[in-house]
Amino acid sequence: MIKPRTTPGVMELLPRDQIAFQRMLDVIRRNYERFGFLPVETPVFELSEVLLTKTGGETERQVYFVQSTGALEQGGQPELALRFDLTVPLARYVAQHEHDLAFPFRRYQIQRVYRGERAQRGRFREFYQCDIDVIGKDTLSVRHDAEMPAVIHAVFSELGVGDFTIQLNNRKLLRGFFEGLGIAEGERQALVLREIDKLDKRGADAVRATLTGQDFGLADDVADRIMAFVQVRSTSHADALARLDALGTGNATLAEGVAELREVIELLKAQGVPETDYAVNFSIARGLDYYTGTVYETTLDEHPQIGSVCSGGRYENLASHYTKSRLPGVGISIGATRLFFQLREAGILSGAESSVDVMVGLMDEERLADSLDIARQLRGAGINAEVQMEGKKLAKQFQYADKAGIRFVVLYGEDEAARSVVTVKDLRAKEQFEVARDDLARTLRVEIEQQRAMGGV
Amino acid sequence: MIKPRTTPGVMELLPRDQIAFQRMLDVIRRNYERFGFLPVETPVFELSEVLLTKTGGETERQVYFVQSTGALEQGGQPELALRFDLTVPLARYVAQHEHDLAFPFRRYQIQRVYRGERAQRGRFREFYQCDIDVIGKDTLSVRHDAEMPAVIHAVFSELGVGDFTIQLNNRKLLRGFFEGLGIAEGERQALVLREIDKLDKRGADAVRATLTGQDFGLADDVADRIMAFVQVRSTSHADALARLDALGTGNATLAEGVAELREVIELLKAQGVPETDYAVNFSIARGLDYYTGTVYETTLDEHPQIGSVCSGGRYENLASHYTKSRLPGVGISIGATRLFFQLREAGILSGAESSVDVMVGLMDEERLADSLDIARQLRGAGINAEVQMEGKKLAKQFQYADKAGIRFVVLYGEDEAARSVVTVKDLRAKEQFEVARDDLARTLRVEIEQQRAMGGV
Repeated sequence: MIKPRTTPGVMELLPRDQIAFQRMLDVIRRNYERFGFLPVETPVFELSEVLLTKTGGETERQVYFVQSTGALEQGGQPELALRFDLTVPLARYVAQHEHDLAFPFRRYQIQRVYRGERAQRGRFREFYQCDIDVIGKDTLSVRHDAEMPAVIHAVFSELGVGDFTIQLNNRKLLRGFFEGLGIAEGERQALVLREIDKLDKRGADAVRATLTGQDFGLADDVADRIMAFVQVRSTSHADALARLDALGTGNATLAEGVAELREVIELLKAQGVPETDYAVNFSIARGLDYYTGTVYETTLDEHPQIGSVCSGGRYENLASHYTKSRLPGVGISIGATRLFFQLREAGILSGAESSVDVMVGLMDEERLADSLDIARQLRGAGINAEVQMEGKKLAKQFQYADKAGIRFVVLYGEDEAARSVVTVKDLRAKEQFEVARDDLARTLRVEIEQQRAMGGV
Repeated sequence: MIKPRTTPGVMELLPRDQIAFQRMLDVIRRNYERFGFLPVETPVFELSEVLLTKTGGETERQVYFVQSTGALEQGGQPELALRFDLTVPLARYVAQHEHDLAFPFRRYQIQRVYRGERAQRGRFREFYQCDIDVIGKDTLSVRHDAEMPAVIHAVFSELGVGDFTIQLNNRKLLRGFFEGLGIAEGERQALVLREIDKLDKRGADAVRATLTGQDFGLADDVADRIMAFVQVRSTSHADALARLDALGTGNATLAEGVAELREVIELLKAQGVPETDYAVNFSIARGLDYYTGTVYETTLDEHPQIGSVCSGGRYENLASHYTKSRLPGVGISIGATRLFFQLREAGILSGAESSVDVMVGLMDEERLADSLDIARQLRGAGINAEVQMEGKKLAKQFQYADKAGIRFVVLYGEDEAARSVVTVKDLRAKEQFEVARDDLARTLRVEIEQQRAMGGV
């Protein structure tokens, strides 16, 4: 006998949690499609040679390699590896199918990715990423950078996770600002940005002390200006624009960053995103080196401890390893597994009611054909229905429906048959009513639609 | 520069094909949910020790093992392996979560599985399986066996792949029949069944010759009875019942099989499945040893060369490797990747229109805010809309929409703005009309719903 278990670092859910998770993915997918993004799926494994284009690095340490039994016995290097994000597969996909795609290419991809993380709470070896990207050929207007936060806004509004703020910054603006302070050299600038990234964790005083300490040796007034800069959070649309104006024009890089961020913010407003839901935040740099313009993070106002729930940005060239074409792009990613896990931990999400709307109970064995016919009518009306196929005690049938989270139980026994009615028990409202057999599907359809319209899922 | 490519044996689709494939999966999922099945997802990899319970066998030769970089360097045996079907993960899941599940447990699972196949046309190393199973605790009524073909019927009707026939048989009936002919020993019976399974490929005469030849040495009259038996295909509901009656009661095993198959067929009718869409076929045995009662195959009437598109059956005990509980079950599986590939080859399916319903064109740069507002209204009405963010030539915008398979292009220029109307080009119907700007979303909503109602997808 083998003990049934999964490897640590994977999220496996019981059905009611799986239903809640599936609804989250459905909301994300529906909104991605609403904004005109096209579905792409790539194989879970890529050729190792294609996937691992960079030399070494943290990510490669975490790659899972794949070998079939035969290849394992021959002892060769693994030919295949599991994707560790959706960006490298996108780059490979766009380069490979370049001549069959229409640009700007707008794709969404909702698939699992794999990282050989050490087993640790909250660290996942397998998790969903939900990405959108717009890829241009040769050029891509900064206007597309303004589409991303509009999509984020639509997704998180519908997810119903409370107030959130989409925080915006621009790498050119950051670069120009530091150049203006004489911190122009790339490596040194990166080190300063890395310190600033610790602002939330270490606090302003500690970060300031580091910047003026012996490692960095910045003058007090420079440190003051940096600290004031990175603590900027705009409080309204007008304030965001005023904060940008206050930076002046400075050098060309700063001016370019300011102009881009201004255009993004203006277009956000034009798309109807409420000004309470976005802000400029000059401390956001995003860890990845590869962002070059707009960058995004999204935080839940009442749950800052969760950190960013949706991040991304603009990059100069998606697929330089695979093609000579210049493919600039902008994209965002939602880590759905981690998000679901954390929303559940924070008590924001709980297991859903069943995806089964109705259980047709079985009062006596001879009426199974009636049960099946009732279920057929319900299904025809778009209602998810399950039939009790075996004549168990009614109490047991109710117990089953209750445990499974099914809202309605329908009963059709001798008494009901004599009067051509059906008894409906609403386990959620804890009430019971009768309805003409021919009206059952229509009546329940209305009940279920009302529930959905009220945001109950 | 690395050549962008995938490993052989995977199906990667361009967006319009991906949309068509996604719609196929959606139809399958929707119908699975309609019949009250609950979603389950399991990790792509299982612990090797848990996954590989059997000793050797063809399947284990094809397993993909997974190792992180670190583990690979240490040279140990791979701890993880990719699932090769959804049945072993289901067994592990049910055994592991037994006390949290309500039985009978009805689950659906739509995920990819992995097999280390040799590279060969039509052989997939990664492919989708779409499974449903009902798992009982201790016992499970044969009535659940009748639910499977009802689900198959609902799925394939909605997929719109032409006429199909759900073929039914019963392993007890088969076993009883062969026992009645004196072919009672298990191994010998299996060999005979394997020969019969070649009926379609080798033809009746060749199979008969083998059975009467020196390997089997069956008497002519026995071979005649076998050949007559396995060529039975019922032509109607009444004919199916008559074919069962004609078998007589024989031994207890035969009688049990006949009674089960009769109940399944009667309940199929009670569920409203048309009698043209199912038939008994006494030649169906299913390769897997583990089916013990009802077995199913589904064939497309006009495309017999595709073989069975949905198969399954009843098994005695799902998870004997993981739990002492007896868990009988019944299930079916659709291999969606292979099905999609073959339907496309047969010309039954082609790439869908885009999932984007509308492209909002940009006639002049100053009207971008109007474009965004129009898109917002369309999206609010549940219409998938994309905005041309850059002011390219109109001809280029149309070319893009056409290539992408977008049906409607909406234009709002100076002339339209003066009259508060919007010009709509229907690229599919090749016609153009004007509509008041405020009525646009409602008008297109109606058009799109009509299209969907007419089965156009």
